[in-house]
Amino acid sequence: MTEGSRIDPHVDRYAARARGMVASETRAMFAFASRPEVVSLAGGMPYVSALPLESLGAMMAELVATRGPSALQYGSAQGDERLRERICEVMALEQVTARADDIVVTVGSQQALDLVTRLFVDPGDVVLAEAPSYATALSTFAAHQAEVVHVPMDDEGLVPEALRATLARLSADGRRVKFLYTVPTFQNPGGVTLPPARRAELLDICAEADLLVLEDNPYGLIGFDSEPMRALHADAPDRVIYLGSFSKTLAPGFRVGWALAPAGVRDKLVLAAESAILCHSSLTQLAVGRYLETQPWREQLKEFRVMYRDRRDAMLEALDAHMPAGCRWTRPGGGFFVWLTLPEGLDSKAMLPRAVSERVAYVPGTGFFADGSGAANIRLSYCFPEPDQIREGVRRLSVAIEQELELRATFGPGRPTPGSRSDVPGPGFS
Amino acid sequence: MTEGSRIDPHVDRYAARARGMVASETRAMFAFASRPEVVSLAGGMPYVSALPLESLGAMMAELVATRGPSALQYGSAQGDERLRERICEVMALEQVTARADDIVVTVGSQQALDLVTRLFVDPGDVVLAEAPSYATALSTFAAHQAEVVHVPMDDEGLVPEALRATLARLSADGRRVKFLYTVPTFQNPGGVTLPPARRAELLDICAEADLLVLEDNPYGLIGFDSEPMRALHADAPDRVIYLGSFSKTLAPGFRVGWALAPAGVRDKLVLAAESAILCHSSLTQLAVGRYLETQPWREQLKEFRVMYRDRRDAMLEALDAHMPAGCRWTRPGGGFFVWLTLPEGLDSKAMLPRAVSERVAYVPGTGFFADGSGAANIRLSYCFPEPDQIREGVRRLSVAIEQELELRATFGPGRPTPGSRSDVPGPGFS
Repeated sequence: MTEGSRIDPHVDRYAARARGMVASETRAMFAFASRPEVVSLAGGMPYVSALPLESLGAMMAELVATRGPSALQYGSAQGDERLRERICEVMALEQVTARADDIVVTVGSQQALDLVTRLFVDPGDVVLAEAPSYATALSTFAAHQAEVVHVPMDDEGLVPEALRATLARLSADGRRVKFLYTVPTFQNPGGVTLPPARRAELLDICAEADLLVLEDNPYGLIGFDSEPMRALHADAPDRVIYLGSFSKTLAPGFRVGWALAPAGVRDKLVLAAESAILCHSSLTQLAVGRYLETQPWREQLKEFRVMYRDRRDAMLEALDAHMPAGCRWTRPGGGFFVWLTLPEGLDSKAMLPRAVSERVAYVPGTGFFADGSGAANIRLSYCFPEPDQIREGVRRLSVAIEQELELRATFGPGRPTPGSRSDVPGPGFS
Repeated sequence: MTEGSRIDPHVDRYAARARGMVASETRAMFAFASRPEVVSLAGGMPYVSALPLESLGAMMAELVATRGPSALQYGSAQGDERLRERICEVMALEQVTARADDIVVTVGSQQALDLVTRLFVDPGDVVLAEAPSYATALSTFAAHQAEVVHVPMDDEGLVPEALRATLARLSADGRRVKFLYTVPTFQNPGGVTLPPARRAELLDICAEADLLVLEDNPYGLIGFDSEPMRALHADAPDRVIYLGSFSKTLAPGFRVGWALAPAGVRDKLVLAAESAILCHSSLTQLAVGRYLETQPWREQLKEFRVMYRDRRDAMLEALDAHMPAGCRWTRPGGGFFVWLTLPEGLDSKAMLPRAVSERVAYVPGTGFFADGSGAANIRLSYCFPEPDQIREGVRRLSVAIEQELELRATFGPGRPTPGSRSDVPGPGFS
């Protein structure tokens, strides 16, 4: 009898996969983070208040009044065709050539992640993911009983030799690798980006190993310093399933994301979507389509870039100014996140109570690994708070770290968390 | 090498569950059904044009302009709390006592179906379902590798003795039954409703067998002749997971449904929802919540009931007037569907080309069985077409059936479809 069986009479009925469904470590932190006296560097919420709410509202009113019979009705499981045509234009910014017919609209890119995993992963199959990787992707892989094997990153993202070595080891062990999951651009949580030469090398390795690639690209158009990167999909459309999202470029409240996949995979994704949700919301799909057709979305995107760049700058300046020696962090060229490594001997989860008393919230690194690593790390987000709050939050965090360092100097390091440090390079190490 | 492997290079990568993902039989019919010269009695689309589109549009505008920062943001995986409170009021109409905390908002009730199945069903587990049952639920069960065992119905829904016998047989075979899936009120596709005495008996049987019940209730508030039925959940809240939806009482375009579940199950459904879609659309959830708070939804529901009752009446009158001898059909007290049984020797799928030339669309019965039954049956919907179209559609269908009967009289019955007729009672047989 487990403890759960005393309170849940259905505990013996659950499927084996339910054992992989466990509450995210970040959940308690998010409850704390929403308190008004707290500066939250924890969440990944885009700053939607920057949107022109009045005109978006007027657009919605016009949509319902004039196209209500479609907008309020069931739609196809593949998604609205006009929206899919507009999505092709968005992806063209990253040099992706796509036909509307090869796109499946999903409930955020999270649903695309789920559908792809559902389609490919049998229990025990291996999925490769960066170390660290996007937390909710790891939950999805676990929910489908995949075994996640992490591939090390450095400041330029996934390390090609490490990928090669991992594939060789798994092949020698007779393990079946179903796909490589990667966020190549402005990675969550690492904040690092794979440069063009490494992209080519990665695709070569995957071609040699006949490995499918799942390219998750929610931040690709939120770059601060240059033109959008060329997507992996652009160079290997038959090998790469591309996941996109309007959650960061417009707003998450629509829950409109998509998958671009080779035709055979696309057909099966449509069937999987149908059995999962019947169809997506016509209302939110038509709204996003209308936004792309009638609103100045390219200008809005520029505004977002400038705003998030200012926030990144505020965070990096504050880190430079306040962080004690021994801290290292990444310097993102876009996206929402900085990945921070604490000085030797400190543990980001053990430090949480101190952060709570300093009224600053962050996400401990352990949430971004499937193997218990990450205790030395922290994900800091700069997307939602204003620059002054960001500076204050980083200052408070530095106080918490200083206090932990004093404690360590007085009493020595605490019991090390298993797997908290690894010998492989990590982002922020250079 | 299968044929698929020549066109889909990824065919060897799919998970075992992908084999259960096959295109619905109704798909081709729906393409035909949308042509303007065709009267479609095929789809289950509610008549959303009856909604006050201007005021719904104004409500959306106000929502985005005044609550945009919430409506456009991420929300919790469980769903908006204020909406969950309103949902409790809606369920109270069916005598369900619920706390907002026990509800998980889902992408239509289809997602609730998927999450429950994902949570409980291991490959090879048995799910019990009515004969016939809702087509997309069967797809969902198949996608999770459940084995569906049908339990016969008659004009009063699921037959209790048949359920008892099925459970005894499966128990003797050592099979694990994970839950009974039932649409007890105005069933899709049967159009029949379980009366109160049978509800009590069904719950007794399930209690004896310690069987979980999945009560899918999208049509409960679309009754024509009486007060809403008391939900199964009202009498067995710890044994019944209740699924609800705003797709028929408001509009499908919002994709807002829900599951009401015992606390332990609810916790796991939230985790499953998070890994499946991260969170539902705040925009559509807040819109439905706002609709329930500010619009005369009870009056709207009355209008829908009157409108659909008129359509049901048109269909039943036309069936009485036109259908040849040997046809039988159910007489629904609510909901969207009539279940028709063809005269001996006729096959609803074989008859489709004739229906196409008569310009009438329907769904053959085989789509509503997991075991190949249903060739003698047709699902007719009266929800979307106007009464005059319904009458014309039924007339056209009767012409097609008459022609098939002539053919049968001349050449004898065709090769019988395996499993097309069963010895158990079926709805429309009385």
